Amino acid sequence: MKAEILAVGTEILLGDIVNTNAQYLAKRLADLGISVYHQSVVGDNPERLLEAYRLAFGRADLVITTGGLGPTKDDLTKEVAFEYFGKQSVIHEESLKIIEGYFKKMNRPMAESNKKQAYFPVDAVILPNNNGTAPGCIIEKNSKIVALLPGPPREMKPMFEESVVPYLKKFQQGVLVSKVLRVIGVGESTAAEMLEDILDNQTNPTVAPYAKEGEVTFRITAKASSEEEGKKLIETIEVEIRKRLGENIYGEGDTTLENVVGEMLVNRNLTISTAESCTGGMVAATLINYAGISSVLMEGAVTYSNEAKINRLGVLRETLDKHGAVSSEVAAEMAQGIAKTAGTNIGLSTTGIAGPGGGSDEKPVGLVYIGLYINGEVKTKKLNLSGNRQKIRERATMQLIDWLRRELI
Amino acid sequence: MKAEILAVGTEILLGDIVNTNAQYLAKRLADLGISVYHQSVVGDNPERLLEAYRLAFGRADLVITTGGLGPTKDDLTKEVAFEYFGKQSVIHEESLKIIEGYFKKMNRPMAESNKKQAYFPVDAVILPNNNGTAPGCIIEKNSKIVALLPGPPREMKPMFEESVVPYLKKFQQGVLVSKVLRVIGVGESTAAEMLEDILDNQTNPTVAPYAKEGEVTFRITAKASSEEEGKKLIETIEVEIRKRLGENIYGEGDTTLENVVGEMLVNRNLTISTAESCTGGMVAATLINYAGISSVLMEGAVTYSNEAKINRLGVLRETLDKHGAVSSEVAAEMAQGIAKTAGTNIGLSTTGIAGPGGGSDEKPVGLVYIGLYINGEVKTKKLNLSGNRQKIRERATMQLIDWLRRELI
Repeated sequence: MKAEILAVGTEILLGDIVNTNAQYLAKRLADLGISVYHQSVVGDNPERLLEAYRLAFGRADLVITTGGLGPTKDDLTKEVAFEYFGKQSVIHEESLKIIEGYFKKMNRPMAESNKKQAYFPVDAVILPNNNGTAPGCIIEKNSKIVALLPGPPREMKPMFEESVVPYLKKFQQGVLVSKVLRVIGVGESTAAEMLEDILDNQTNPTVAPYAKEGEVTFRITAKASSEEEGKKLIETIEVEIRKRLGENIYGEGDTTLENVVGEMLVNRNLTISTAESCTGGMVAATLINYAGISSVLMEGAVTYSNEAKINRLGVLRETLDKHGAVSSEVAAEMAQGIAKTAGTNIGLSTTGIAGPGGGSDEKPVGLVYIGLYINGEVKTKKLNLSGNRQKIRERATMQLIDWLRRELI
Repeated sequence: MKAEILAVGTEILLGDIVNTNAQYLAKRLADLGISVYHQSVVGDNPERLLEAYRLAFGRADLVITTGGLGPTKDDLTKEVAFEYFGKQSVIHEESLKIIEGYFKKMNRPMAESNKKQAYFPVDAVILPNNNGTAPGCIIEKNSKIVALLPGPPREMKPMFEESVVPYLKKFQQGVLVSKVLRVIGVGESTAAEMLEDILDNQTNPTVAPYAKEGEVTFRITAKASSEEEGKKLIETIEVEIRKRLGENIYGEGDTTLENVVGEMLVNRNLTISTAESCTGGMVAATLINYAGISSVLMEGAVTYSNEAKINRLGVLRETLDKHGAVSSEVAAEMAQGIAKTAGTNIGLSTTGIAGPGGGSDEKPVGLVYIGLYINGEVKTKKLNLSGNRQKIRERATMQLIDWLRRELI
């Protein structure tokens, strides 16, 4: 079964609101094994709306609309759908009663225009709205189906789950099972090259790469007759992908790098502290995204000035004089210094030039040293990062946390 | 001029990501006086992509695409556009050099596939990408224009503003002048109510509210025959808005709260330090977004544990025992403690319950105390914040920095 999502509303065309409904429905339809090849947005205009239905039904069997079920003259999604399907509408007494009851409960008079919301063709499947006044409906004719849903997400989502999903079950062939692998430390193109033959020859399961800030994800999706069969199909290809990408795969599904590292630290009861210069608190703040971190994260220091590095971390003035604040030597003393004063197993440090100013030929913007003290040993790494100030700081943060992850494996 | 927005990407069709690009472009095109009657999404499939171009250009003069400029074989937006326009592409040496430089700086090998990103028709307008590897381009033929932009919003937005907006200016009748006022400390609906008559009766200039995380912006846009006339039109309404919103307006245009506060601190040479519990480094990291801060930000401490609060900041054990770590008293001692040990004019502190666990009836999730030591005096504020862990921490951070701003005015 092929479906399309059609959002109706001038407020989306003008950019006043983000069309989050499309994403929700797309995800849920994918879960249900229904293919979506197009999403569209059209305004509250009867000609363009009618044309949008024609176009969508020329490509798909099911069209799900959101928006335009309100009481005003602007709200035309339903009326134009009835016109497209050549159906007359009559008042649906049950819906009218519910709408009247809604206003009674709210202690507000019902406007005459709200009656419009209770008009439907006699053979429509009415979708009750437990969160607003507009009922939705499903109309079917010549194997073409339209499901008309309200625009507000808090009305649309429950209506979809409670009424549309059960209706669609009868059309489902098999199930779609998917799994996401999260990769860090290699770029999208390098990761894709490492999996080139897999990506080129994919049929079922499919493997789709997607680059997000600082990481790459691969979504493996299998079509199968059962959940179990789907999982088996995924496993075969997952094993191969894991063999190729190895430690670069840091997690699965919706996890984050800091959750993975946070769990490792908490499980082994390894305490940690941070000493940050150029990242200015971002390493600590990122680790603290993981709610469980409180039992192991002892302290963070943001030591931006030389004085703070000396007083707070015990970095030697002669090290600063000889090598400069942005140096491997200072990164090492910072990591060791914070671990020592905070009494932790692990100490992390950053010192670098995030820009836009402060760079030189010898030490350009983007040069960052990261330090890692662990098991009584201190190591440093030199990074040459690109991007603006914010990006350089974010990248240094992620590389440092990823380095710790690899050390802990 | 009629435009359409075409997002390309299977990840949008599958609902993996929300198409925020469409909203951004829709809003900006509306600002520029360009009408948008359709938005569409299509996957990385050459036939459907070609059909999408045909359809869009049958309805509009300008098509702006997002996504599909990456290095993999999946990324086809550019190639199919060249095909639609009947244009050959050749390597664009300048772009190739920039891409090579990007990888060199990242200290990572460039994959052969990245070369694909430097191929363009000889008469294309190349749009440089300062935030990623994929350059965009504009192609024009027989009064039909396509602008191909990358998918990641962080790359797409600056490219649109820096290169597409100037290009589109030539199609505009008259000029559009706009100015953004940035508001913090009042919600969107409250701010809109304060300006209700202005928003209801707007013609020229128009005033468009836009709610972003933690702040509201008002974009005033005037249509005029000259820049100067436009500025005059804006000024009249700006004076009135400023009268109503007062100190809640923290800045104009692209500035940020931390830039405004950072400049105030640097101009008056007021030194500052931070002591963070629940925000875990986010206050320091936010202040450090402002590059000039290094001369005044002396030190930051992330003191998550009671021990760290005592040892590092000199918080009294009896204060912790009597009032608990999340209390006005501890916030006060933290702010004063960090200012004292770091020797700064100002000390900021946060202590609270960011959740998801750790809340109680007396001290629920979202309870945060913020402290401000300034001019030898220490004050605290109690916040009851809503949202998830991340949101609570972000909101506490912004409220604390905004509080400092108001104190400095």
